[in-house]
Amino acid sequence: MFKLFTDCATRFIPEKSMKVLLGEAHEAMELLLSGKGKGADMRGWIDLPLYVDDVIKECNEIASSWAGKLDAVVVIGIGGSYLGAKCALKALSHTFSLGGMKPKPVIVFGGYSLSEDYMSDLLGYLKDKEFGVIVISKSGTTTEPAIAFRILKKVMLERFGPEVTRERIVAVTDGEKGALREMCKKYGYRSLAVPNAVGGRYSVLSSVGLLPIAMAGCDIRRFVEGAKDAMNVLLNDKSDENPVIQYAAIRNALYRQGKKIEVFVNYNPKLKYLGEWLKQLFAESEGKETKGLFPASLDLTTDLHSVGQYIQDGERTMFETAILAGSREVEVKIPEAEDNLDGLDYLKGRTLEEINSKAETGTRLAHVSGGVPNIYLKIDKVDEWNMGQLFYFFELSCAVSAYILGVNPFDQPGVDVYKNELYRLLGRPGYTD
Amino acid sequence: MFKLFTDCATRFIPEKSMKVLLGEAHEAMELLLSGKGKGADMRGWIDLPLYVDDVIKECNEIASSWAGKLDAVVVIGIGGSYLGAKCALKALSHTFSLGGMKPKPVIVFGGYSLSEDYMSDLLGYLKDKEFGVIVISKSGTTTEPAIAFRILKKVMLERFGPEVTRERIVAVTDGEKGALREMCKKYGYRSLAVPNAVGGRYSVLSSVGLLPIAMAGCDIRRFVEGAKDAMNVLLNDKSDENPVIQYAAIRNALYRQGKKIEVFVNYNPKLKYLGEWLKQLFAESEGKETKGLFPASLDLTTDLHSVGQYIQDGERTMFETAILAGSREVEVKIPEAEDNLDGLDYLKGRTLEEINSKAETGTRLAHVSGGVPNIYLKIDKVDEWNMGQLFYFFELSCAVSAYILGVNPFDQPGVDVYKNELYRLLGRPGYTD
Repeated sequence: MFKLFTDCATRFIPEKSMKVLLGEAHEAMELLLSGKGKGADMRGWIDLPLYVDDVIKECNEIASSWAGKLDAVVVIGIGGSYLGAKCALKALSHTFSLGGMKPKPVIVFGGYSLSEDYMSDLLGYLKDKEFGVIVISKSGTTTEPAIAFRILKKVMLERFGPEVTRERIVAVTDGEKGALREMCKKYGYRSLAVPNAVGGRYSVLSSVGLLPIAMAGCDIRRFVEGAKDAMNVLLNDKSDENPVIQYAAIRNALYRQGKKIEVFVNYNPKLKYLGEWLKQLFAESEGKETKGLFPASLDLTTDLHSVGQYIQDGERTMFETAILAGSREVEVKIPEAEDNLDGLDYLKGRTLEEINSKAETGTRLAHVSGGVPNIYLKIDKVDEWNMGQLFYFFELSCAVSAYILGVNPFDQPGVDVYKNELYRLLGRPGYTD
Repeated sequence: MFKLFTDCATRFIPEKSMKVLLGEAHEAMELLLSGKGKGADMRGWIDLPLYVDDVIKECNEIASSWAGKLDAVVVIGIGGSYLGAKCALKALSHTFSLGGMKPKPVIVFGGYSLSEDYMSDLLGYLKDKEFGVIVISKSGTTTEPAIAFRILKKVMLERFGPEVTRERIVAVTDGEKGALREMCKKYGYRSLAVPNAVGGRYSVLSSVGLLPIAMAGCDIRRFVEGAKDAMNVLLNDKSDENPVIQYAAIRNALYRQGKKIEVFVNYNPKLKYLGEWLKQLFAESEGKETKGLFPASLDLTTDLHSVGQYIQDGERTMFETAILAGSREVEVKIPEAEDNLDGLDYLKGRTLEEINSKAETGTRLAHVSGGVPNIYLKIDKVDEWNMGQLFYFFELSCAVSAYILGVNPFDQPGVDVYKNELYRLLGRPGYTD
């Protein structure tokens, strides 16, 4: 089980405030579980890990039927239909693979931008490849993925013919209605349903995340087990020590004290996209009614030589939430050198993991002394089980946190403003006024 | 020449404040050019584009001597010795290349983190490859790159022997002193000098950026020409219309009005690392004395389905600076479909570039209506010349801006706090108290 450490944050919070906030966190958790809070019809993610056995089986079956046969699979999706899988793949794939744990198929993403440069590079990459498509969209009409799907389908029809194209498309979409569901019916695409009560940013443990993650060769059973193990602890621990209660209370306490920015940091490039996933989760859940912490992310120690200067000495408006991971099996030690010109002999024989861990402690001490509260969470390594743990912990913490803040954790009214402006400018029928 | 558009920002600034700030921007520019401001001995980057002809020649020569012969080149560096090249490579490489414009050598990075997972993946990747190393460090003793260099050199010595290892290492380091310079002397590595009066984050147009960018197969002559063309305009335009004056004035005006976060946005994934480069530039130059805008970055339209919700509806503390690029030669149009189930027929025959550009306008309208000022800058496409333009424009704007803020744009005292804590924890000789 992951561990949450709070002492470098709570020292910035008066005991009395902390007590108040812990109380509010318990109430928020009860509100969430009672189904009486805002947006309560979108709570399907809470016990999702209990109900995905069939989905796991189906995802693994599709993955193994494509494995080895296809060179590449394009996963089409944006926002919550993209970031969970992207995050898990980045965490679990070899650093120097384009995507995926196996040589074939390589997993690439499409439909998460409107860039012509990106699309032309993607088409170039696919030119000489046998490829398939996983298209993920609840409605099937979100502009970016819908365009990417139309373009790629056209290419597939021309190159592979209708029968092979049909076999090489899997849709993850609404179980009953919507454009993509209609296409599945008409053309006979294989499909998985997006559960009704699960919003995009809470969907990584559903078919939305599981299919692309399975396709990449990851063990999605372990992944869901990690989430389930987290769920069993976090939903049942009624004490103040429950990490969800702790984390939700602390970040709201700091927000009330005037902190404006939460910086998610990692010390392992494999967790780069965890920062992106967290930014969506918190920004969309809390960033409304002119409220909410602004979520940012940093990769350390890399960015200590960049935004680190600001964290240390800039405006005192932020706190840090660090996700720390031990390294995997392989040990890398500092070797002997021909000489000691680099002055590193004092590190000889020590592992990179130890040095990285000291860097993490040093950074925390430096930042705390500079007035930046620091919450940190430790997992023993980056693998499927631990990623499942992290996803579940943050989803639950975010929902509880948003209830403390007093907003609906499950809507995103601000996203529609841009969508409507875009439709109007493009002259979409019905939006031309 | 790039174009800066300011009307969606200036409408948020009272005319009187704007006038005051424009005056201060002119003064700051004069202070910078007079050499009487803080940190004035680090202004070597201002006319750097005029003095790099020999460096360009040497970089191209080294690049062509390795081209085709090596499978991979590891560029070792962190902070300013990393981000400029990474940004340029990401912008100019094929999206689905690991790094570089040519099939060989692939350019990968090392020494920008202490992660054991990363290093073990890197060593795995290099296992069966003929590779070389470009090691970039002014001193040669910064922990992250020094460790990576020690590890990789050991591997090279064991696999290639001392003679070939010597031929496959190029150092970019201080011209006279320091650990890496000593190694060059002792082992006969080829080397380029880091100019004395150019700090890391202002160094992309020096040997620091030019060598890895040339190695990747990019045209560094065009790149420097872009910067030179920008320089000629920006240093000589004494009017209020000078984009540097405009941009520096506006961002400081917004900061004084209470804006706390500057969000750098792009609409092309190729510019993802421009955001990272900009964050270092501004955070290290301005984030001190408990002052400065917090720099964040977003990739759009991707992140409209993520942090976009916060931008639209969260706390009203940010403004946006958008970098917009037309697409390259290849046109991608929305094709005909078998049916119109996706409802996209109204876009049939239109290019992705047009739609992306409408999305950009729509986003701006939505955000401005939500109280988020928007500055935007347009380049016609992402290529060497335009990247040179952008780098120069932002370096100059940042220095002028920091002078308006009243801080030294060229130091980074906060970075040392972490370095010293790390040395102490690791027991480095002289730091143990």
